[in-house]
Amino acid sequence: MGDPAGVGPELCLRLLAEPRVLSACVPVVFGDWGVLERVAQTTGLSLPRDLVTIDDVPAASLSLDEARLVDARSIDASRVEPGMVSADCGRAAFAYVDAAIRAALSGQVAAIVTAPIHKEALRLAGIPFPGHTEILADRTATRRYCMMLTSERITTSLVTTHVGLGEVADQLSAERILDVIELTAAAMARIRGRDPRLAVCAFNPHAGEGGLFGHREEERFIAPAVAAAREQGIDVEGPLPPDTAFLPARLDRTDAHVCMYHDQGLVPLKMLAFDTAVNVTLGLPIVRTSVDHGTAMDIAWQGKANVESLIRATLLALRLARDEAAPFKRGLAPSPP
Amino acid sequence: MGDPAGVGPELCLRLLAEPRVLSACVPVVFGDWGVLERVAQTTGLSLPRDLVTIDDVPAASLSLDEARLVDARSIDASRVEPGMVSADCGRAAFAYVDAAIRAALSGQVAAIVTAPIHKEALRLAGIPFPGHTEILADRTATRRYCMMLTSERITTSLVTTHVGLGEVADQLSAERILDVIELTAAAMARIRGRDPRLAVCAFNPHAGEGGLFGHREEERFIAPAVAAAREQGIDVEGPLPPDTAFLPARLDRTDAHVCMYHDQGLVPLKMLAFDTAVNVTLGLPIVRTSVDHGTAMDIAWQGKANVESLIRATLLALRLARDEAAPFKRGLAPSPP
Repeated sequence: MGDPAGVGPELCLRLLAEPRVLSACVPVVFGDWGVLERVAQTTGLSLPRDLVTIDDVPAASLSLDEARLVDARSIDASRVEPGMVSADCGRAAFAYVDAAIRAALSGQVAAIVTAPIHKEALRLAGIPFPGHTEILADRTATRRYCMMLTSERITTSLVTTHVGLGEVADQLSAERILDVIELTAAAMARIRGRDPRLAVCAFNPHAGEGGLFGHREEERFIAPAVAAAREQGIDVEGPLPPDTAFLPARLDRTDAHVCMYHDQGLVPLKMLAFDTAVNVTLGLPIVRTSVDHGTAMDIAWQGKANVESLIRATLLALRLARDEAAPFKRGLAPSPP
Repeated sequence: MGDPAGVGPELCLRLLAEPRVLSACVPVVFGDWGVLERVAQTTGLSLPRDLVTIDDVPAASLSLDEARLVDARSIDASRVEPGMVSADCGRAAFAYVDAAIRAALSGQVAAIVTAPIHKEALRLAGIPFPGHTEILADRTATRRYCMMLTSERITTSLVTTHVGLGEVADQLSAERILDVIELTAAAMARIRGRDPRLAVCAFNPHAGEGGLFGHREEERFIAPAVAAAREQGIDVEGPLPPDTAFLPARLDRTDAHVCMYHDQGLVPLKMLAFDTAVNVTLGLPIVRTSVDHGTAMDIAWQGKANVESLIRATLLALRLARDEAAPFKRGLAPSPP
């Protein structure tokens, strides 16, 4: 459900009424009943009457035919101020995702789709993670993972994410770049249903122009990773000068771009696929997708938030989960595998 | 004319046959007759019969009604290998732009438009500048200048340009950012004919998210520069998180983006305005525009190169020159002011 004071609750209400979702899977919302009820009243959105509330997934006997709410009872709904960043909301948002991860790891849900949380709220709550991705990696003991944003037109995956731009160079290594290439190739093969074509961006302007700019990050880290990936049979080109890597002709023939830093990937992605891209965490033992926007505190609880990104994230999670070698062929499994 | 072995010569031939250019100004090509002649033969493009060749502008008496070639005689045309980077070609390209700068400074030409040169060729020739912009700044003793790329849809100017991405943070200062904001505001006022609206991008992802990423480059350098510019009456917002700074709605209401590093500005610019953007050097005592592409060695001397960027650069130079308080109201002046 994401941060209770953000747009997450109203997006969940919209999702629970969405035919494209309900016809494809059984949604289970990890959140607070009281918050959803207040947001339904405030926005005029309906709270499904047949929504089954259960206190904790492991204790419940699940059936396959009803939408569910896992009621975390982690916050007093009457004290939530819409649009306000608070420690209480950060703590609640963390409780939701933590419960969802446990449910996914134990096989009770096929995939996790996350609504937006607020980094500052997490920090106020004393939770030592900058975002969902890091929480998921920690809770699933995953070291080799990356963030990918995918849409029809453009897909980018990130070698580094939430670090200062001045620190990126220190975090590059051939090993890490190869990891991201491999994870991206595997995910895109699943999404496209065929061997994907990847492009890897350079770090410096003009790809360093043969060492004129930068410290040969292209030769030291990127080119060796590309060569190693090619040896595995991955169809990948690079390092490409970043400023021409996203021209239309290149996009036409590329399934995904591996990018060295956050804005190298997110500037072009948001230009071409704002509101339609889905955030996927690659490398986890569970399927996890997310909306590609934030808590949008300025419009929270007003019923204005666009649910399209959450719907797309849900449908992509379903596609990825169905392909997993897991017992989720048609939605929820009745018991852990 | 740019590097003799690149696409510059054939672009000059196309320009000399372009009605949109010939009807608006008198073009003077700084290059080598022998190279143009060979490229005309190779490509089938015509070399104007009435092209007047003069050895050196200062020695000639110029009239306003004929296209000119300033023949630098700086290279043996028969020895130029199309598409090959060489010291001879680097030296020749430097001689052309050097002569053009002297002509502009002495008032014999109203503006300079540069065809592409090759950084590696310059280096092989022992010329200690990475590109045109640095040559122009040196030869005109200009310290406060910047590179701007402009098109109908998107315009970006750069606080740093040809440096490694890892060195950018060290080169940021409030003074430099304010310079670029001021130069950009003045240039866009001239181009748009009204007070422009500017946006300034942050350096770190999410604009540093309140200090979570990076070293508060936003608070230390960018925000103070934006505040100082506002005090001068410049309509400017920022620092904006880079990944949403180029969304369509923002572009609609922004005349130019001030960007902290090369690819922050050039990735979105080339995505939206490849082949149509013009490179302008702001802050020089002379007007200078340039194509926004390189020497394209792979297609040099084949007649395939697209001249649109050079034409747009020429027409923009003309517009900027006409607005200058200089004696170039209708093209060339007969003598220095």
